[in-house]
Amino acid sequence: MNIEMIRAAAARLNGHARMTPLLNSPFLDGLAGRRVWIKPECLQHTGSFKFRGAWSALSALDDATRSAGVIAFSSGNHAQGVALAARMHGVPAVIVMPSDAPSLKIENTRALGAEVVLYERGSGDRDTIGAELAAERGLTLVKPFDEPQVIAGQGTTGLEIAEQAAAVGVVAADVIVCCGGGGFTSGIALALEAEAPGLRVRPAEPEGFDDVSRSLRSGGIERNNAVSGNICDAIITPQPGDLTFPIMHRLCGPGLVVTEDEALYAMAQAFLRLKLVAEPGGAVALAAALCRQDQIEGDDVIVTISGGNVDPDIFQRALDTLA
Amino acid sequence: MNIEMIRAAAARLNGHARMTPLLNSPFLDGLAGRRVWIKPECLQHTGSFKFRGAWSALSALDDATRSAGVIAFSSGNHAQGVALAARMHGVPAVIVMPSDAPSLKIENTRALGAEVVLYERGSGDRDTIGAELAAERGLTLVKPFDEPQVIAGQGTTGLEIAEQAAAVGVVAADVIVCCGGGGFTSGIALALEAEAPGLRVRPAEPEGFDDVSRSLRSGGIERNNAVSGNICDAIITPQPGDLTFPIMHRLCGPGLVVTEDEALYAMAQAFLRLKLVAEPGGAVALAAALCRQDQIEGDDVIVTISGGNVDPDIFQRALDTLA
Repeated sequence: MNIEMIRAAAARLNGHARMTPLLNSPFLDGLAGRRVWIKPECLQHTGSFKFRGAWSALSALDDATRSAGVIAFSSGNHAQGVALAARMHGVPAVIVMPSDAPSLKIENTRALGAEVVLYERGSGDRDTIGAELAAERGLTLVKPFDEPQVIAGQGTTGLEIAEQAAAVGVVAADVIVCCGGGGFTSGIALALEAEAPGLRVRPAEPEGFDDVSRSLRSGGIERNNAVSGNICDAIITPQPGDLTFPIMHRLCGPGLVVTEDEALYAMAQAFLRLKLVAEPGGAVALAAALCRQDQIEGDDVIVTISGGNVDPDIFQRALDTLA
Repeated sequence: MNIEMIRAAAARLNGHARMTPLLNSPFLDGLAGRRVWIKPECLQHTGSFKFRGAWSALSALDDATRSAGVIAFSSGNHAQGVALAARMHGVPAVIVMPSDAPSLKIENTRALGAEVVLYERGSGDRDTIGAELAAERGLTLVKPFDEPQVIAGQGTTGLEIAEQAAAVGVVAADVIVCCGGGGFTSGIALALEAEAPGLRVRPAEPEGFDDVSRSLRSGGIERNNAVSGNICDAIITPQPGDLTFPIMHRLCGPGLVVTEDEALYAMAQAFLRLKLVAEPGGAVALAAALCRQDQIEGDDVIVTISGGNVDPDIFQRALDTLA
C-alpha cells in the first residue's frame, strides 16, 4: 500500500465517484467548541464511501477477469457499492447474504442489478458457498476492507479532504473517521500522510465495539467480544484487518468512543444543521466531535459522515431526541 | 434584470456561497421513468437557496450603506439567509417577525447574530414598524424576492445547473423549480436562457396555492385565496412579484402542481435515495418529477430541492409514508 495506489485509484474514480463537498455550520461549531468540517460520504453513490473502494477494485481488474464478474459477502453498504460499481462496469455481481437480512437490503441490492445468493446463518457455510460459486463462474472476490485496491479507493476521500481543508485554510487538525475494519480509516490516513501531514486521522467507534481503539493502545490486534447488538452495526467488524491495522498503528492518533445515544444525537444534529441523513455508524465521528471535546485539540476538527443507509424507524429515534 | 447581473452576483458569491452538487439515484430514475438530476439547495448555507439572494443583495451595497445594517421581514428561510449574510459581512441585521413565529425559528435567527423584533400579528403594523426602524437606524430593506439583486443571487443556481448539466451530457430538459414569489424561478430561468437555452424552467407549487401556474396560464398576475394552511408554507406567497412574473411569463413552461401527500412522498424518497433532508416546500419539484410524469417530456429532468428547514414532527410524517 502506498500513496501512488491512492492517486491511481483517484484517476480511475474520476467522473464515476462523486467528489463530496466539505460542509460546515455555525451551530455545530458552537456545539463542538471549535470549527467542525464535515465530509459527507452519505452523499456518495449508494449512500456510503463503500462505492469508492468497490469502483477502485473493479476498475483495477484486467478486462477478462472483470468480465467474468465479482462476488462479495455483505448485507450492507459494501454490497450496494459492489453491485452498483459492477453494473456501471457492465459486469455481473453476486452478493452472498444471510437469509435473515432485512428484505429492503436484499431488494435494494437486486435493484442495483446484482444476483443475491442467500445462505442460512446457522447451517450454511458462507465461505464454502462463495468459494464454490467463485470457482464455478470465475468470479473475483471483492473483500470489504482488507484489500489493497479497496483501501486505495477509500483513500481517495483523504485526497479530497486534503485539498478541501487547504482551501478553507485548515492545515492542522484531527480528522475523525468512522471506523469498522479500517479500510476507510487507513486509506484516508495514507492519503493525508502524503498530502496534508498536519491532518491526523483518529478512528471513532461505538462503545463496546472499540477493537481498533484498543488495538491502537495495545499495539496488537484486539477483537470485539460481539459483532452485533448495536445500532452502529454498519461499522462493526470482528477485528481490524491485517493490512489496515499496521497502517493505522503507524499513522493514527488515539481512538474516540461514543455511545449509541451520542450517535443518535449526532444524527439529529446532522438533520437539523446540515440537512443530511446519517446512519448511526456514519454519525460516530460527528458524535465524537460534539461529545468528546476534551479529547480533541485545536481550533478545527474534520469529521467524516461515512454513510446514510438507515431505516426510518431508527431515524425516528434520532428525531425523538429533539422533542 | 439581465444575465450580466447574475454573472456579477456569481463573482460576489464565489468563495462565500456553496456550489451545491448535482446528484442522482438509479432508484429515482426508476420511479420517475426518466433520469432525474437533483440540485440540492438544502445543502446551501442556512439550509436553503435564500442565502444566495441575501449575499448578493448585501454584497451589492456600497460600504457606507451596508455598514448601517439591513432589515428583513421573514420568519423563515429568508430571515436566516439575511442574518448569516449580514454576520459574514460584519454588519447588523434586524429581522421583523410575528410574535407567534415558532420559537425555534426565532432562536435560530438570533443565533445567527440578528436582532429579532417581534410584532403582534393582529394589532401591529409590520410595515410601519419596519419603516420606522429603517429610518431611525439607516437600515436597508432586503426584500425576499421582488428585488433585482436578490433575483440575481438566486439565479447563480441556474449558472451552476447549466455547467453541471452539460458535464453529464444533458442539454435539453425541463428544470422544475420550487416556486413561491418567483425569485428563485425567474433567476434560474434568466441564467438558463443565456447559458443553456435547451433547459426550460417550470415552476412547481402546492395544490390550492398555485398562483404562479394560474398566472402563467392567464397571462396576468393571479392571487392565492389563502397564504397559510399547507405544509409547504415556505414557498407560499400572496402572488407572483411585479419583477419576477414578466420574466417567468416570458421564459417558463407550464406550472406543475402537487398535493401535500405527494410532497411528503418526495421527502421520503429524498431521505431514502439521496440522504437529504428536504422541507415540504423544497420537495414539490421532486414530487412533480415523480408524480406528474405524463406532464413532462424528454429523457432527463432536473429538479431543485430548495430547502431543508423542516421541523422533526413534519419529517416524521414523511417517514411514516414508508411504513
